[in-house]
Amino acid sequence: MDEIDERIGNGSFLISSEMEEIEHCPYPKFYPFEEIGEGFDAVVVGGGDFPSHPLPLQLIGETERVVCCDGAANEFLARGLCPWRVVGDCDSLSAKARQEFSDIIRRNPDQETNDQTKAVTYLAEKGMRRIAIIAATGRREDHTLGNISLLIEYMRQGLDVRIYTDYGVFVPCRDTCVFECPTGTAVSIFSFGTHGMQAEGLRYPLRDFTSWWQGTLNTTETPTFTIRCKGEYLVYLNY
Amino acid sequence: MDEIDERIGNGSFLISSEMEEIEHCPYPKFYPFEEIGEGFDAVVVGGGDFPSHPLPLQLIGETERVVCCDGAANEFLARGLCPWRVVGDCDSLSAKARQEFSDIIRRNPDQETNDQTKAVTYLAEKGMRRIAIIAATGRREDHTLGNISLLIEYMRQGLDVRIYTDYGVFVPCRDTCVFECPTGTAVSIFSFGTHGMQAEGLRYPLRDFTSWWQGTLNTTETPTFTIRCKGEYLVYLNY
Repeated sequence: MDEIDERIGNGSFLISSEMEEIEHCPYPKFYPFEEIGEGFDAVVVGGGDFPSHPLPLQLIGETERVVCCDGAANEFLARGLCPWRVVGDCDSLSAKARQEFSDIIRRNPDQETNDQTKAVTYLAEKGMRRIAIIAATGRREDHTLGNISLLIEYMRQGLDVRIYTDYGVFVPCRDTCVFECPTGTAVSIFSFGTHGMQAEGLRYPLRDFTSWWQGTLNTTETPTFTIRCKGEYLVYLNY
Repeated sequence: MDEIDERIGNGSFLISSEMEEIEHCPYPKFYPFEEIGEGFDAVVVGGGDFPSHPLPLQLIGETERVVCCDGAANEFLARGLCPWRVVGDCDSLSAKARQEFSDIIRRNPDQETNDQTKAVTYLAEKGMRRIAIIAATGRREDHTLGNISLLIEYMRQGLDVRIYTDYGVFVPCRDTCVFECPTGTAVSIFSFGTHGMQAEGLRYPLRDFTSWWQGTLNTTETPTFTIRCKGEYLVYLNY
């Protein structure tokens, strides 16, 4: 651990009593519209398609802590950008990136997990809880599916991690949640095991979906919408 | 139903005794390598990114029965291609495509399902069972997730439908299956409810995965690999 790493902390929040209170809060969680794309502690850049939409690009510009997953550092270098850290097994790094970023590479050869999770874990161990991931989709679809589903794992660890693509944002949720977003927004809900799911403010009714496609292609009909249930799910909001 | 439609049949195979036998066959299903990308009755072109990889492009060239899902017909027209049918709610068709393809449009305004399923159902009703889908991924990720998961639904209806992307193929499977493919192929397995999942010929062991990411990033170590289990799952083979 280098000097900069030490200044940030050791991620002890993961077992803090504060987190326990948040996890067992009896009130619905509220997602204000202005916070949907703001206030992140760090941004992780994955190995998928580099974004072209202004929102994920803006996220990179708003934080000093950009962590590139392995080969994403090559793309960063080609664009004249410099990340804060490069994390992963580093088998996809170009010789130029390896040399250019030698001071900020944190190699992690673990074969049990992927580079996205290595980057998120690196940040979590330094106490960073709100993390945006970009370039997590596109290219190999099995990576896309894996990366999206990992948001649920991060939520179980007490982290608030979202994926921003060129088309929308994936927000992992537990139990009843209230979202603020413009009327007419396209919304999809993916259940990871829910009980009694119902909605207010969406065009089509929700239920405890058993297949991914069943919760797709919904639309908001009011400026806030509520998802009532017990259990875990992903909300996808189209920009 | 027009003259061409009538010549093809009415899809009665879905309740034929032959299908029943296939469904209850006690032997593992074998997927020979040469059949992975061949022998389809029809190809469905979805509304995702139009492919650039030779394999999905080749599939279009090998069949006369190409069905475009709604707005995919615009892309087909722009490339100087003509589909066999255009199926969907047709709200994304350009005026030019609407005029050009007026004889082959089969409008289906059903709001309970998506254009991909409308195209597959149209083909199934005409007795076509082996269907390849291209352009099902890319663009909105909620559509990608929905389209991929629908392969399991089609399998439950007795159809053999696969999705070919620029990176790999998704094959829906039930119970024990044997695949032939080159050693070193990247493979991912997505469980949709399995019991006792084990593998032979893969680098990392399988189990009854409870999250999408758990079955990703595996590799074949022999020229055939076997997945043993009861239940439904998707196999993704990287090209």
